[in-house]
Amino acid sequence: MKGKSGGGYVMADKICSSADKVLEVFLENAPMDTSHHRMVKQQNKCGYGLQGICCRLCSNGPCRLSPAKPKGVCGADADTIACRNFLRQVAAGSGCYTHVVENTARRLKEMAQELQAEGKKPKYKDSVAKLAKILQINCCGNCGSDCHNSCAKTAEMIADAVLADIRKPYDEKMTLMKNIALPKRYELWEKLGILPGGAKDEIFNAVVKTSTNLNSDPMDMLLQCLRLGISTGNYGLILTNLMNDIIMGPPQISMDPVGFRIIDPEYINIMITGHQQSMFADLEEKLESEIVQKSAELVGAKGIRIVGCTCVGQDYQARSGCYKDVYCGHAGNNYTSEAVLMTGCVDLVVSEFNCTIPGIEPICDQLDIKMICLDDVAKKANAQLLPYTAEEKEKITSQIIADALCGFKNRKEKLYGTAPAKGEKRVNVMAQHGFDKSITGLSEDTLVAALGGTLQPLIDAIVSGKIKGIAAVVGCSNLRAKGHDVFTVELAKELIKKDILVLSAGCTCGGLENCGLMTMDAVELCGEGLKEICTALGVPPVLNFGPCLAIGRIELAACALAKELNVDLPQLPVVISAPQWLEEQALADGAYALALGFPLHLALSPFVTGSQVAVNVLTEGLKDLTGGQLIIETEVDAAAQKFEDIIKEKRAGLGIDNGINKGGDAIC
Amino acid sequence: MKGKSGGGYVMADKICSSADKVLEVFLENAPMDTSHHRMVKQQNKCGYGLQGICCRLCSNGPCRLSPAKPKGVCGADADTIACRNFLRQVAAGSGCYTHVVENTARRLKEMAQELQAEGKKPKYKDSVAKLAKILQINCCGNCGSDCHNSCAKTAEMIADAVLADIRKPYDEKMTLMKNIALPKRYELWEKLGILPGGAKDEIFNAVVKTSTNLNSDPMDMLLQCLRLGISTGNYGLILTNLMNDIIMGPPQISMDPVGFRIIDPEYINIMITGHQQSMFADLEEKLESEIVQKSAELVGAKGIRIVGCTCVGQDYQARSGCYKDVYCGHAGNNYTSEAVLMTGCVDLVVSEFNCTIPGIEPICDQLDIKMICLDDVAKKANAQLLPYTAEEKEKITSQIIADALCGFKNRKEKLYGTAPAKGEKRVNVMAQHGFDKSITGLSEDTLVAALGGTLQPLIDAIVSGKIKGIAAVVGCSNLRAKGHDVFTVELAKELIKKDILVLSAGCTCGGLENCGLMTMDAVELCGEGLKEICTALGVPPVLNFGPCLAIGRIELAACALAKELNVDLPQLPVVISAPQWLEEQALADGAYALALGFPLHLALSPFVTGSQVAVNVLTEGLKDLTGGQLIIETEVDAAAQKFEDIIKEKRAGLGIDNGINKGGDAIC
Repeated sequence: MKGKSGGGYVMADKICSSADKVLEVFLENAPMDTSHHRMVKQQNKCGYGLQGICCRLCSNGPCRLSPAKPKGVCGADADTIACRNFLRQVAAGSGCYTHVVENTARRLKEMAQELQAEGKKPKYKDSVAKLAKILQINCCGNCGSDCHNSCAKTAEMIADAVLADIRKPYDEKMTLMKNIALPKRYELWEKLGILPGGAKDEIFNAVVKTSTNLNSDPMDMLLQCLRLGISTGNYGLILTNLMNDIIMGPPQISMDPVGFRIIDPEYINIMITGHQQSMFADLEEKLESEIVQKSAELVGAKGIRIVGCTCVGQDYQARSGCYKDVYCGHAGNNYTSEAVLMTGCVDLVVSEFNCTIPGIEPICDQLDIKMICLDDVAKKANAQLLPYTAEEKEKITSQIIADALCGFKNRKEKLYGTAPAKGEKRVNVMAQHGFDKSITGLSEDTLVAALGGTLQPLIDAIVSGKIKGIAAVVGCSNLRAKGHDVFTVELAKELIKKDILVLSAGCTCGGLENCGLMTMDAVELCGEGLKEICTALGVPPVLNFGPCLAIGRIELAACALAKELNVDLPQLPVVISAPQWLEEQALADGAYALALGFPLHLALSPFVTGSQVAVNVLTEGLKDLTGGQLIIETEVDAAAQKFEDIIKEKRAGLGIDNGINKGGDAIC
Repeated sequence: MKGKSGGGYVMADKICSSADKVLEVFLENAPMDTSHHRMVKQQNKCGYGLQGICCRLCSNGPCRLSPAKPKGVCGADADTIACRNFLRQVAAGSGCYTHVVENTARRLKEMAQELQAEGKKPKYKDSVAKLAKILQINCCGNCGSDCHNSCAKTAEMIADAVLADIRKPYDEKMTLMKNIALPKRYELWEKLGILPGGAKDEIFNAVVKTSTNLNSDPMDMLLQCLRLGISTGNYGLILTNLMNDIIMGPPQISMDPVGFRIIDPEYINIMITGHQQSMFADLEEKLESEIVQKSAELVGAKGIRIVGCTCVGQDYQARSGCYKDVYCGHAGNNYTSEAVLMTGCVDLVVSEFNCTIPGIEPICDQLDIKMICLDDVAKKANAQLLPYTAEEKEKITSQIIADALCGFKNRKEKLYGTAPAKGEKRVNVMAQHGFDKSITGLSEDTLVAALGGTLQPLIDAIVSGKIKGIAAVVGCSNLRAKGHDVFTVELAKELIKKDILVLSAGCTCGGLENCGLMTMDAVELCGEGLKEICTALGVPPVLNFGPCLAIGRIELAACALAKELNVDLPQLPVVISAPQWLEEQALADGAYALALGFPLHLALSPFVTGSQVAVNVLTEGLKDLTGGQLIIETEVDAAAQKFEDIIKEKRAGLGIDNGINKGGDAIC
């Protein structure tokens, strides 16, 4: 297989490259088309679309702008059209996260009500107390006004407060925001007039705003992107995590196996995709029961387990300490899911949100793998829809288990273990793929705990220069930024070589862990300073925070660092990259990063380059507003270098490296 | 000027054709670019976009489908991509109407609260009583449980009920729906599972559903379009009208001047665009005051008046009986607005929603016409934003009046009346354009009143065959279906020639009235039967229901007819055409028509033809679900013929024309 250059990413002959070479070989020999194959076929891109200057909002269109045709029929120019398209994307992305936080709050409320009815306390009491404290919510029991109780009533009140906030009208500010955000940021957002009203209404208004012949003001639309970013981050990310911690248990640091090796063909394997882990709480509980495991044995399986895929798998992985018996590990990210199915060892797919790519549908059809969908927003064409509700959850769980048993039975009747469909030969990739000990379970809390209960060791390492700075390499996996996970993995390597600690959350984790960057062996790739620290602490140089939702955890950790240093976020030697951003959700995440004031790198530009206003504001103008800055850099080395330069600048700003603060006394 | 054929519409040399020939000549000689010019420049359309098979939801895209590349990178096929694009458009359109109904309910609530504080009754008491009766809302006063009172408290309760309904979660059905919809339809929608939950959540969910790698099921997405259509129609259209009737006064039938002739250069002219008339209530009130009219005289004007443009002007026109002194009439529809400005007689533009096309911005800039925007969702790039709130309304009104006075003063200092910018010569189009007596003010009530208090005369005329059937020719104006208003006007002519009565609502009215189809002279274009009826009743054959919102009024009239005949809507000899649909809102209207079970004609296809599922379901499959049917017909004669055939079929279905029911005894 020889690589060749094409459209900015290295292409193999039939498929695009992957940083995951075992996967690449497997896919090259795959009997079915996958996204990796289609990326090659779809490599010629529309220039209008890439620049965001194609408008199809009305029947006079589509209009495409060019120097000879600088306006659409209605008179909309490139700034209006590109910013309108962009805002609609950010709104949809924010909508996705807001849907997730709303559903999570509903699940929390249901759980809390059930517990109260049964007179029980929540299982993860510390998580209740933590969130109640953050949100300043006290239960209405008899335990005083400052109880921050860990009772079920408090959990219900948290859920109610979140639901009430996100459903507020657009002209009422969300009240929990002040408790979640870093005070310096909150004040700035208030001053800039970008504090969001009710999260759902902000999204609704953005969609209306971007409809035909409504808003034409690019600056107004870009500012709304920031508002959406703020609600996405503080609610869609942070609150979802913290509520999931109550429902599912908090993350725990662990060294777990990753990749296809986690799949045992002799088990009944339920592959899950999506982002709404709380929808699986009942399933987990039932899978743990003896009767279900016995039923599995009856059909000839060793047991029945969940196979993680996409962010919901990544989220499970972070909490794997809580679910060792029924969760066998994380197989891979979005663009690994087709291959996971092609191992022939999956008996059922249960999905509830993105990133469930349509490419898995024909593979499931061909291999007779049933698909079940728990949320109609993510209804797959060939899936059975079982809309998740509290009332129906036991019925749904029963059906999932029954279908999984049935799926395994069918598989067993074919060829045990690898089950090639229609006689086609397939590589048994399981043994070769992935690693046995990859770090998982980082969070704003476990990070501090691993450091001995304080951020001081990290601050000392930064001040000493052993760790120059921190890069959050987060977000999705795409196939266009040099290939599947190629940019992500190469960038992480370059950064750790420069003594920059890498934190990751999202499908990036799937790529980084399946390529070994989260094992202790990766310490060998570090610069001397980082190597020393990692060796001393016994952690890899690339830390796994879990799903993309956990970008919110990284932000909480950054806020803790900023508080400790009494500085604002943009002053920290912290940079963010979503090198291989893929989805609209990633754009909402990106808007959050820019609202937080971080430098944000993307290896592929969002579709806005046709608008000079958008380019100027995002890459330069924001520096004077939020401190944020978008950096589009398509080359790995150059991106890493830019990060190093920015980190150097931030360190100088903090007075590190100037001789005065050696030893770190001044700033901490 | 010689016409030539291009892309389905007849093109003049520099501009696209218009049915409005006075306007066409004016624009051909215009010194500035307009939409009519840009339509020619933008005539080469992207085939992928037209078919809806271009996807730009993720960074692996844009992906464009073709026989050689039948799927996007992720695996999405043409059905998924086209239906996803379509649903997002319908959702945005539904969002626009839902924003309008929400704001209208807020205005109603504010007004009701002010009245209560002042101990006053609403001015339009009958409108309160009517809507209270429809919604079964009784005030909480002392007047019994069946009061349907016309008090301010009842008005507030109506507003509250609407606000509560549209803000319900997606899994709670809206409760007022049952009171608004025709019972036969309600039952069917319930049976089909397409009764919407909270209107805003339905839109929100649709946006999430259409985001990257979520829903891939074309049928699920098409059914959601119907749900959105149902909430759009019953809330966005019907309830907005009926609440506006309380705030602004109900429509009254009148024969009014239309077109540019309504603009008097010697007045201060405030051009308004948008859809939210209730935002102008305070302005109207103040304009009526002596002090403001005196101030106008002080700057040398005869007075100060509102010039209607787009649907908000059309809505004013319907209620013109209430605002004779401060509203001078309706100048024209969306694609007339640039020309209205170029008359040089406008002193200020106040906009609050679509269809405020960006093309008016450079014209305002060049002619020094200030733009004010009352709603940030419709912020125009060069407009001053004065976000409308109850608290700020008087301040906003004062600024509008001050800016208008100032605008007039500036204009006067240039060349009085025609005000050519930078010495360019312009036709004084005012005298030639439009008509003096065009019918306005049709509604579900005034129609019945005009018929003598009962629908019987209309039923008799239909049964006798003098009126074969009714066509609602509604919606927007676009420039691609044979040119500006060309298809609309030609279709109306063909229909009345075939003795089909035409009702209109939306920008179609602007075109039809400016081309004389709503004057008594148009009776001469009718077939013998319709001519006899129109002459006897003294009404033109094309009836003006006002803004696109009033499509809801036409539906109420159709429901009344269906109730009278004890049939369901699809059985009526009624057809709908939105021949020149333009905006996303029109697609939501269209979804409503299909949910109601009407045959719906469009002269341009929505961008879904790349999906065989979408085409099959919309044009055929729906017949078995709702009775609705989408008809794409690009030629006027053929469209009129199809309508005649359908009407014939519906008449046969009702037993008219088969000898048994002659005289109309059986069905009425």
